[in-house]
Amino acid sequence: MAEHISKQFDLELENIRTRVLQMGGLVEQQIARAAQGLLEENLVLSDAVIEDDHRVNELEIELDETCSQVIAKRQPTAIDLRLITAVIKTITDLERIGDEAKKIAKIGKVIHEGSFLASPRVQISHMADLATAQLRRALDCFARLDMEGAIQVVRDDKVIDAEFKGLMRQVITFMMEDPRTISVGIDMIFVAKALERIGDHAKNMAEYVFYMAKGEDMRHAKLAEIEKAAGHG
Amino acid sequence: MAEHISKQFDLELENIRTRVLQMGGLVEQQIARAAQGLLEENLVLSDAVIEDDHRVNELEIELDETCSQVIAKRQPTAIDLRLITAVIKTITDLERIGDEAKKIAKIGKVIHEGSFLASPRVQISHMADLATAQLRRALDCFARLDMEGAIQVVRDDKVIDAEFKGLMRQVITFMMEDPRTISVGIDMIFVAKALERIGDHAKNMAEYVFYMAKGEDMRHAKLAEIEKAAGHG
Repeated sequence: MAEHISKQFDLELENIRTRVLQMGGLVEQQIARAAQGLLEENLVLSDAVIEDDHRVNELEIELDETCSQVIAKRQPTAIDLRLITAVIKTITDLERIGDEAKKIAKIGKVIHEGSFLASPRVQISHMADLATAQLRRALDCFARLDMEGAIQVVRDDKVIDAEFKGLMRQVITFMMEDPRTISVGIDMIFVAKALERIGDHAKNMAEYVFYMAKGEDMRHAKLAEIEKAAGHG
Repeated sequence: MAEHISKQFDLELENIRTRVLQMGGLVEQQIARAAQGLLEENLVLSDAVIEDDHRVNELEIELDETCSQVIAKRQPTAIDLRLITAVIKTITDLERIGDEAKKIAKIGKVIHEGSFLASPRVQISHMADLATAQLRRALDCFARLDMEGAIQVVRDDKVIDAEFKGLMRQVITFMMEDPRTISVGIDMIFVAKALERIGDHAKNMAEYVFYMAKGEDMRHAKLAEIEKAAGHG
């Protein structure tokens, strides 16, 4: 009987994990479509992202509810409880990533043909690829409790931050040279900022992997401390 | 004996609630000092905010840990479990508000005398007051499980959003008239954006009050639905 309950419980945890990954897949798709909608001036895609944001929100609420039910029913301790706590935090970040994708889609809807600066377009495309890759890797680390990978995600967040700063400098130069580009330049900065924040959320998610795996809370820790905790020190 | 355990448990929940309010007080102070540091070009204040951010982070980690311990030990259900889940979400928002205050402080450190646009200064001061008031009210609603007040916080978030848009328009006009104001103008936009996000976090916190009080998840709901749920419909 005890084994049966435990098996059932394992299934429930596996189900939660699977649904987090599904939510992650949807959010990843939202970023990709928001970036594509903006870069290709494809209003249908931008509209679809805005329309589908409620699906991300619903998944968060459903998963929160499931986590509460499992806590109430199974009274988990130790690693199982850490998994559930990490899931509650992770889905908050996924939902906020969805919000950032929606912001990009909204800007995509007001960017008019020809008003779009050519050069930042390349950088934004690159930043979108980086942010999507970071999210995918963070989800992968979550699925496999991969601490090595999680360290790499935390470390690589700096790359997106550097890209953001580079884009800012470039856009400011454009704006100074030609004040007609100011409005669209600010839109570009907001898009880049949204992508940079997506990177931050992916980093948060990678830090929860440490918490799940080791029970040590690595949020806000310096990179060196994280590596030490993972046995790299 | 049962009564004793229950009393002990009540004390633990009360202790969690008190510590959330303490964390909220610290975060409120961080916003106020960040805004003052920026507006009065007071580097000592800006530095203090950056220095003290780790205290906010530590409070989040300690509270997460306490919540996990209480779940493991007390196996709470229904309203108690909802309180703890809401606390885990609330402190994430408080920590992110702390991050926004830190961003404002960092911008405060690079704003040089005379480079600061006079007019947005007034609006930023006003937005900082609004954001701080929203946070204080959200915390108050949390402490008193006040759904009426929580509705008002959700409703008033629109005021900060409108202020942000007004400031954006004004700063863009300045930038177009005098491209030398572009750099400082973008700094101003980022400060305003940080304040607008603080408002969003306060709104999130108000929405968790619904979840605690009624067990209904009002996040992402339209204002009309929220009012209906609270018996205003």
